[in-house]
Amino acid sequence: MTLQNDLFLRAVRGEKTERTPVWLMRQAGRILPEYRAVREKLSGFIELATTPALAAEVTIQPVDLLGVDAAIIFSDILVIPEAMGLPYEMVEKRGPYFPETVKTPADVARLRVADAEADLGYVLEAIRIVKRDLAGRVPLIGFAGAPWTIFAYMIEGSGSKTFSKAKRMLYVDPVLSHALLQKITDSTIAYLKGQIRAGADVVQLFDSWAGILSPEQYRTFALPYIAQICDAITEAPKTVFAKDAWFARADLAALHCDTIGLDWTMDPVESRQLVGPGKTLQGNLDPCVLYADFDTIRRETRKMLKAFGPQRHVANLGHGVYPDITPDKVKCFIETVKEFREW
Amino acid sequence: MTLQNDLFLRAVRGEKTERTPVWLMRQAGRILPEYRAVREKLSGFIELATTPALAAEVTIQPVDLLGVDAAIIFSDILVIPEAMGLPYEMVEKRGPYFPETVKTPADVARLRVADAEADLGYVLEAIRIVKRDLAGRVPLIGFAGAPWTIFAYMIEGSGSKTFSKAKRMLYVDPVLSHALLQKITDSTIAYLKGQIRAGADVVQLFDSWAGILSPEQYRTFALPYIAQICDAITEAPKTVFAKDAWFARADLAALHCDTIGLDWTMDPVESRQLVGPGKTLQGNLDPCVLYADFDTIRRETRKMLKAFGPQRHVANLGHGVYPDITPDKVKCFIETVKEFREW
Repeated sequence: MTLQNDLFLRAVRGEKTERTPVWLMRQAGRILPEYRAVREKLSGFIELATTPALAAEVTIQPVDLLGVDAAIIFSDILVIPEAMGLPYEMVEKRGPYFPETVKTPADVARLRVADAEADLGYVLEAIRIVKRDLAGRVPLIGFAGAPWTIFAYMIEGSGSKTFSKAKRMLYVDPVLSHALLQKITDSTIAYLKGQIRAGADVVQLFDSWAGILSPEQYRTFALPYIAQICDAITEAPKTVFAKDAWFARADLAALHCDTIGLDWTMDPVESRQLVGPGKTLQGNLDPCVLYADFDTIRRETRKMLKAFGPQRHVANLGHGVYPDITPDKVKCFIETVKEFREW
Repeated sequence: MTLQNDLFLRAVRGEKTERTPVWLMRQAGRILPEYRAVREKLSGFIELATTPALAAEVTIQPVDLLGVDAAIIFSDILVIPEAMGLPYEMVEKRGPYFPETVKTPADVARLRVADAEADLGYVLEAIRIVKRDLAGRVPLIGFAGAPWTIFAYMIEGSGSKTFSKAKRMLYVDPVLSHALLQKITDSTIAYLKGQIRAGADVVQLFDSWAGILSPEQYRTFALPYIAQICDAITEAPKTVFAKDAWFARADLAALHCDTIGLDWTMDPVESRQLVGPGKTLQGNLDPCVLYADFDTIRRETRKMLKAFGPQRHVANLGHGVYPDITPDKVKCFIETVKEFREW
């Protein structure tokens, strides 16, 4: 199906765009009253994520309500551990919790490499419904967690400020660590290929906990697995967002990916120098700017757009939009990007 | 009193040292069974921090038990809000909690500039006891939180992954923000001068939440206040540790301070290039290395020492030592630093 708005896809591929495309990480979610209305009828986050018709509905909401240039499938990075045999719960206001964690080589051996159709069919089905219902209005982004971030949750068992159990494992048992990272990587490749077959136009890897590793550990335990995924996925453009991994930007530039996501601490001009001209950059307004008044949002958004320049940029926040931001502030950000021509 | 071991003081001042001095952030604390024995008899952390004889006792423990080259006064960065009129509680396993937070200009107006003797006399008294009981064995470090980090807690009311309420305030009400930051700064200057009068040989500023600000906000709301403090404190050497503020290293080099702390994501060689030859660097082993076996600890510690070189370096971790690290691992780190001569 021909896309009616292919700005995002062209920007990701490095083709010329008339204006900068825009979407927001976590755009499908709590910021929208329409999302909360769907969510309130259910037992919890996981029921929503595993019910394809509803996941599809909330995926499309920001396209209708906010006017973004791309949809991103409503799901969670932790469906991969679940699909490998390590289930989790989502505890309201506290985040994910794994009743069992990976501690021994036997624990790693017991895990399976996820099969996209058999283990994650509900995500693929949601993607098919979204593609049908979007009817080519905007492209659809699929996604997965990067292997180190998934590993971190599987060892730690929950969110953490330091992820010290997960980092401990890298130092104490690098053999177990590499074995688990490889299994996650194989699962992720199968999963992303499944998403693309189901209709995802672009896929994004989220390395949410990249920034707590030392540069050397990042190069040993994180980058090689991201590289494997980028090399294996040849069917669609790829975006890599390694939050807080400022020290890895030049390394990310060497990956076979199309777009690199930046958080709000990374200066656009400096990042372009480090990454070179060959990749699209995505980001990176401080999510807290959307708490400010409309004039401040417009001013800060324009400043960001100027810094990135008119091509090879996808406007976004530097992190997921915070749940207590009001939709009118999000719309102000989006409209400012769409109207901007003052390069 | 002449110091018997002035290695740390000489390194901080940029004078030649025979070997690299070493201490650990959070060395006085839960890693030591002797600390836990003192702590268990009390109602909580705050009772320990506000009882000078006991605070002094746990300050000296790591000098006796671990052989570090400096003591650091046992206290907390949040004594400053308390001294300004905003009390807090320390909730076991959850961290600090402020029953009242700063929301309006009237809230800022109600706060006072702390008086070191009247409001924080218990810390100064602990410093005097430590100095007497150390009897010149090693120097004593005094400390305070940097104004942005203190501000973050006073607005947010507790720890937070995003400190979005505090960051929101910077965008929404910069006038209130600067007024509060100035009051914190004035309080901190008075407090650090009091600590030095009481006997602190060096003072360190901890900007624990530096890394969640954009570089522009850091330059607007954090650095100018650190600069004021560095300019005002002329009585002793100063160390500034801005955790995760990798983007500010060149700016920190322009401060009137003697030493800059680095976290474990900051490469020593790159950091030296950014900071230039004029300052001592402190850090920066990944605290998680101390979970590994002794051989790994020795190897990683030596690698770090080689990267920093033989002069203008104070060995430390890149963050406070984690509470579940065993003392034998900490001793291995310290002994490795003390024995190293292979530059």
